[in-house]
Amino acid sequence: MSNTLKIGLVSISDRASNGVYQDAGIPALQDWFTHTLSSPWQAVTRLIPDEQTDIEANLIEMADYEGCHLILTTGGTGPAPRDVTPEATLAVAHKVMPGFGEQMRAVSLKYVPTAILSRQVAVIRGGCLIINLPGQPKAIKETLDGIFAAVPYCVDLIGGPYIKTNPDVLVAFRPKSAQRPA
Amino acid sequence: MSNTLKIGLVSISDRASNGVYQDAGIPALQDWFTHTLSSPWQAVTRLIPDEQTDIEANLIEMADYEGCHLILTTGGTGPAPRDVTPEATLAVAHKVMPGFGEQMRAVSLKYVPTAILSRQVAVIRGGCLIINLPGQPKAIKETLDGIFAAVPYCVDLIGGPYIKTNPDVLVAFRPKSAQRPA
Amino acid sequence: MSNTLKIGLVSISDRASNGVYQDAGIPALQDWFTHTLSSPWQAVTRLIPDEQTDIEANLIEMADYEGCHLILTTGGTGPAPRDVTPEATLAVAHKVMPGFGEQMRAVSLKYVPTAILSRQVAVIRGGCLIINLPGQPKAIKETLDGIFAAVPYCVDLIGGPYIKTNPDVLVAFRPKSAQRPA
Repeated sequence: MSNTLKIGLVSISDRASNGVYQDAGIPALQDWFTHTLSSPWQAVTRLIPDEQTDIEANLIEMADYEGCHLILTTGGTGPAPRDVTPEATLAVAHKVMPGFGEQMRAVSLKYVPTAILSRQVAVIRGGCLIINLPGQPKAIKETLDGIFAAVPYCVDLIGGPYIKTNPDVLVAFRPKSAQRPA
Repeated sequence: MSNTLKIGLVSISDRASNGVYQDAGIPALQDWFTHTLSSPWQAVTRLIPDEQTDIEANLIEMADYEGCHLILTTGGTGPAPRDVTPEATLAVAHKVMPGFGEQMRAVSLKYVPTAILSRQVAVIRGGCLIINLPGQPKAIKETLDGIFAAVPYCVDLIGGPYIKTNPDVLVAFRPKSAQRPA
Repeated sequence: MSNTLKIGLVSISDRASNGVYQDAGIPALQDWFTHTLSSPWQAVTRLIPDEQTDIEANLIEMADYEGCHLILTTGGTGPAPRDVTPEATLAVAHKVMPGFGEQMRAVSLKYVPTAILSRQVAVIRGGCLIINLPGQPKAIKETLDGIFAAVPYCVDLIGGPYIKTNPDVLVAFRPKSAQRPA
């Protein structure tokens, strides 16, 4: 088990958590990881409303007690009053990783000018990398495709398991000194 | 009146506010909005020195009491000791919108390498989007041209009036579900 | 002496400061400045471990007491637990300069996808511009080549000496009103 990557998948939405509509974020994420990863992984999932204290409590519990190495949130990163995912994520951060947000917006900007409204951040808490993703399945995929090449090496550096990917889908990048034989 | 966009135009400059020279920022902004917007709008203007407490007080008054939906500042975003516009803007923020600053610098970088010295930020305070712009009329126009397509949808999301633009000048972008008939 | 640029070169590394391996950062920086600058400069160097309080104390001492106009750090900007250079730099900041970090990551991203893991920041403290650079000599050069055109004008604006560069190596950019005859 020690080399199994534990991934937290958190969908943040008042309406999905109330059952007003079906959450599409977690299935999109599970699908993406099923296609992309070739090393062992397991997911822990959460569906929670846009409440900052709830989001913070869930992120802390998943990082510190569930032992997630990687948490992906989806939803709640826009400018609307109920969108508080970035605030909750920054509140539990030990280190801020500004390059992820910059790159996610740059990638999304190729598709829609409103990408600059997205307030996504990424942070490290202990041995866990937490990344905010957009809410729409199409944007989730575009964004992950644009940043994930850097995630395996980041997880190495914070003490997590060695992530391998299906090279036809996505090539993980590591400096030569950090590469292990296939 | 309820569908009239109220715009705050704030020129921040010791010399212009002292009358040492004529402010060029507010006229440039009024000119830009006159050409670009096709829905009703009105402007509230302020000319203030580079004093952080004055800037904060004016932003709060315009957002909370004047009911501005959008505030554009011009000037005071460089590295000089008197440049404090970003600090004042962040101090009155409810939400930070990092994508605007990133995109404004990326746009200006096409014109001048010193664009990376600009410290512009954008934030939301209640129902008001506040964006820092550069001081020079030419740079004001370049920057607004590069970000404004995302502003109408942002104002929708924080409860403001539905902004329409002259499509030959600038096409506002909204997801289909947020579009209203012309 | 008053027109001599004083540059602080700070290599931040547990292993290099312990003598486990030879520091390569400061020699790379000295080499870069020797090739690039044509106006007088002198360097003050420090080799310190990845300890936030040590880094902060050294930055303050170099900016406030040694009178450095420019400090370049190398190392300690990644996601690993011991990487705390950005936190130390932000802790001593009077002004944050977000454009440098954005541009350094954008430049490095042309070479490696893991550039988004770099957490480099730049700040101003009094009359000193402090910029975090990566740790590898190759990345130091790529990054400086990508941002330095804006540094001389920034140093002008915070009251430092007028920096001149060898135009075959790097052309410094200043608005016309700030240019002096060669």
